[in-house]
Amino acid sequence: MSEANFRIDEAPLPAPAEGEVLVKNLWLSLDPYMRGRMSDAKSYVKGVDIGEVMVGQTVGEVIESRNPALKKGDKVLAQGGWQLFASLPGRDISKLKEGPPLSYYLGVLGMPGMTAYFGLKELGQPKAGETVVVSAASGAVGSVVGQLAKAWGCRAIGIAGGPEKCAYVKNELGFDECFDYKAGKLREQLKEIDVYFDNVGGEILDTALARMKLFGRIVVCGTISDYNAADPYRVRNWRAILVNRLKVQGMIVFDWKDRYGEALKALGGHLAEGKLKTRESIVEGLDNAPKGLIGLLKGENFGKQLVRLA
Amino acid sequence: MSEANFRIDEAPLPAPAEGEVLVKNLWLSLDPYMRGRMSDAKSYVKGVDIGEVMVGQTVGEVIESRNPALKKGDKVLAQGGWQLFASLPGRDISKLKEGPPLSYYLGVLGMPGMTAYFGLKELGQPKAGETVVVSAASGAVGSVVGQLAKAWGCRAIGIAGGPEKCAYVKNELGFDECFDYKAGKLREQLKEIDVYFDNVGGEILDTALARMKLFGRIVVCGTISDYNAADPYRVRNWRAILVNRLKVQGMIVFDWKDRYGEALKALGGHLAEGKLKTRESIVEGLDNAPKGLIGLLKGENFGKQLVRLA
Repeated sequence: MSEANFRIDEAPLPAPAEGEVLVKNLWLSLDPYMRGRMSDAKSYVKGVDIGEVMVGQTVGEVIESRNPALKKGDKVLAQGGWQLFASLPGRDISKLKEGPPLSYYLGVLGMPGMTAYFGLKELGQPKAGETVVVSAASGAVGSVVGQLAKAWGCRAIGIAGGPEKCAYVKNELGFDECFDYKAGKLREQLKEIDVYFDNVGGEILDTALARMKLFGRIVVCGTISDYNAADPYRVRNWRAILVNRLKVQGMIVFDWKDRYGEALKALGGHLAEGKLKTRESIVEGLDNAPKGLIGLLKGENFGKQLVRLA
Repeated sequence: MSEANFRIDEAPLPAPAEGEVLVKNLWLSLDPYMRGRMSDAKSYVKGVDIGEVMVGQTVGEVIESRNPALKKGDKVLAQGGWQLFASLPGRDISKLKEGPPLSYYLGVLGMPGMTAYFGLKELGQPKAGETVVVSAASGAVGSVVGQLAKAWGCRAIGIAGGPEKCAYVKNELGFDECFDYKAGKLREQLKEIDVYFDNVGGEILDTALARMKLFGRIVVCGTISDYNAADPYRVRNWRAILVNRLKVQGMIVFDWKDRYGEALKALGGHLAEGKLKTRESIVEGLDNAPKGLIGLLKGENFGKQLVRLA
């Protein structure tokens, strides 16, 4: 994927139909899943066709409303896409409580935060004292996973690329340890894993598989290493599932939408207590969104990757 | 592995120590896990060293007892190994209820039956109406898995090697369908799997992974396809776990030993009602045990593979 795969078009401002609102997008979230939407491969939702507006979650402000539940000036969370304005049905939009920085609703209080919360709590089922390992530990999901693990009494170990990210994960986010996979020593460094929260797939996953403890749990949350590969990575250590009676489960945050309120409350509480730190990588303007996504897929971001649209 | 890897030794009859009994072995169970015990690779229990008596479960008769809980003539289940007599601590031996053919305690009422029962019930968690697919369907575990699935109101689909085994699985065991993996059409034949009970690993597993339904469950019970391979099979469709939010779990029957009584009762009940059919492949005499095991690993057996020792 390259910037040449993207094109900016202009179009008249859409007029909201009955029940819709016109939203001015303020922040656009960039997420690894977007790469999947651009490919032909079967995924958990349908892809975006060539010529369509690229999908994406946004935080915006209502500038015109034809829906009684929303009024001009409301700040909202929406699937506004890669564009500056969107006319959307009011039922697909959530009104945001003001207080935290609005961009947090795309990160630590948004889908990445929810993914971390439900993935770790419900699929990882960590018990106090257990060792939780998470890959892409400086990313939007991984950073929350490790901090929740600490808050819940576990030992948190991150995996990240490069010494700078590892220092951030350990020193700023407070993980017990962070290993730099680029240093090539993961196989010796990882051991006795109770819960592995996998955001990357590939060799790192395979190494972790071989280091799981008896009755360990693996949360399969992302396979970013495959997104640009011609063929998927082939997993060598499948047999570890049998030998160590592992439980391996796939995690998609939409499955938990009935419980988003619970996660928002828990994450908001940890934020307020200073137990949950977050960092954002911001690119400026829609023109730079492709560059932001490409950088994200290469692991260049630090924390949640956003595009500032206004 | 070949017959040349085995040797028969003679030794004096062991005298039972205090608390032990001397057992005459009548039946020896042959199981795929035995191949793992002969290899250096890490497995869930320690291997057998060169020169040691090969391990194996047996049904036998007590011929001398120095344990008050067991008396001469008792029929027992034991880890008697590949030998004609064994002196064993009484606490490691279970006295068998007479009634069913004694050999059944090594098959449908033994470890394979228990494996099928707990693996399907607790890990597969099939609901009535769901589709359960099991590989090695004519084998000791697979044959019970499919028949339990039918008894519990599911659609049971077997995978087996060759038309003869498939006819047996469908016509005699009463599965709804059985696909011959050697015919090379599994990818088209398998679809919409709710529960896949995997006894084989390898390509068959990979094909099933790609055919799982949303929230499907995979019971990882055996990876027989790896046992004689220099390198383990590398799994291509790992990403299906994420896309379809699968739950994949390893199954070892020892983990369920506190509940063997429950399984024995359930399986015994189905047997008595004629809902559970079983078949045995028998080789005669200890001399033929290596040939029996090699045949089992090649899939030559039909149902439970046994060695008649007396």
